[in-house]
Amino acid sequence: MTYCVGLKTDQGLLFMSDTRTNAGVDAVSTFQKMHVWEEPGERVIVLLSSGNLATTQGVVSLLDERSKAPTERAPYLLDTQSMFQTAKLVGETLREVIAASTPQGQKQDAFGAHFVLGGQIRGTAPRLFLIYPEGNFIEATDDTPFFQIGETKYGKPILLRAYERTMSFEQATKLLTVSFDSTVKSNLSVGLPLDMLWYVADTYKVRLRKRISGEDPYYRVISDGWGQALRNAFGSLPDYPGG
Amino acid sequence: MTYCVGLKTDQGLLFMSDTRTNAGVDAVSTFQKMHVWEEPGERVIVLLSSGNLATTQGVVSLLDERSKAPTERAPYLLDTQSMFQTAKLVGETLREVIAASTPQGQKQDAFGAHFVLGGQIRGTAPRLFLIYPEGNFIEATDDTPFFQIGETKYGKPILLRAYERTMSFEQATKLLTVSFDSTVKSNLSVGLPLDMLWYVADTYKVRLRKRISGEDPYYRVISDGWGQALRNAFGSLPDYPGG
Repeated sequence: MTYCVGLKTDQGLLFMSDTRTNAGVDAVSTFQKMHVWEEPGERVIVLLSSGNLATTQGVVSLLDERSKAPTERAPYLLDTQSMFQTAKLVGETLREVIAASTPQGQKQDAFGAHFVLGGQIRGTAPRLFLIYPEGNFIEATDDTPFFQIGETKYGKPILLRAYERTMSFEQATKLLTVSFDSTVKSNLSVGLPLDMLWYVADTYKVRLRKRISGEDPYYRVISDGWGQALRNAFGSLPDYPGG
Repeated sequence: MTYCVGLKTDQGLLFMSDTRTNAGVDAVSTFQKMHVWEEPGERVIVLLSSGNLATTQGVVSLLDERSKAPTERAPYLLDTQSMFQTAKLVGETLREVIAASTPQGQKQDAFGAHFVLGGQIRGTAPRLFLIYPEGNFIEATDDTPFFQIGETKYGKPILLRAYERTMSFEQATKLLTVSFDSTVKSNLSVGLPLDMLWYVADTYKVRLRKRISGEDPYYRVISDGWGQALRNAFGSLPDYPGG
């Protein structure tokens, strides 16, 4: 399984992804699920992936080839005119790869994958999309300012309760760290290290990209502190008045 | 969907279940998922159900008939000698009902159901079981002192963090209320009112049984207060030190 979140704030876009993949509990590996294409001053495109690893790697490789050999084939990932076009390109590539992997007559579910796509292309606003295995996609709005893919449920309540669009990157990183820590603690198939990326709106370059291990001092402070903070919060509420 | 929890503490057993069932978002109903058989001074048996409603109602009806007409057929739910035998009886009944509902050659998944079974029979200790659609079951231990069925993920992190076996019923009720509130807020298919039951070890009668509506004053205090307490807890942790 996997857990990835893309989050939109007034300041820009924030991404976090875990790195664990598994095909059964005895086939656990570390794979990066965050993929970044950057043309400083022009565009930053970030893709988070969940689902069948062969599918997501296939999609990323195709997008990479398309971005690296611009004379070879169109359309090129670094040549799209807008994030909407980029989302369309990723969606089409995803649909192609799934269709090519699926034996005729079989259901496509096993080869499915989801992507969170975010970034900004000069002359347009920063945008954030969720792309479905069918190749279609939806965009984050003020009502739905974040997308989760993979093992999304454990970490959702804190996002719903504590997210604010005026958050600083420092606060939003804390929010994602808590959300990931709750997920990692509840589900073995989501695991450290985490990849994190900050993109500040209208800068057209990555502000911060970091891999966070289990020994990362800040992660330890949050992981240890959140348990205690949660117990304190729990203690601050009144017990049931009794039967 | 559904959310039910059975919890074991030093004091006894605590149960909570929601009441929403749905077959599509336009076919939402309220059904009790907590079923109680009580012979004061002799035994208390509590069953929480999730899954296909026809299956769970079928199982409960069969168990009911078996308990109400003791001369008719064996084994009787009120005649088992131990909670282990009771779990076996429920598991066998569940497997029968699923097998009878499933057209030949089809997968049984659509007709599946899970049960949490807890209670005490005079002369034995209070016990808590999780029963699978296959009819087999596992028992709660000190390491795994609670079972959740249905939509379990949203409400799990707080159970993992705040449960203690020495909790009073008043505290454990608060814990379950928070866990249910997080789930109700995250997933439309889990809904109020909630059913709650307290069983104090070695009393052989139900201590408290209550239906909790959305207007219940204590539920309101927890639901409103938990959001704020969570935000306070979140605020008490340090922001990310910056990039």
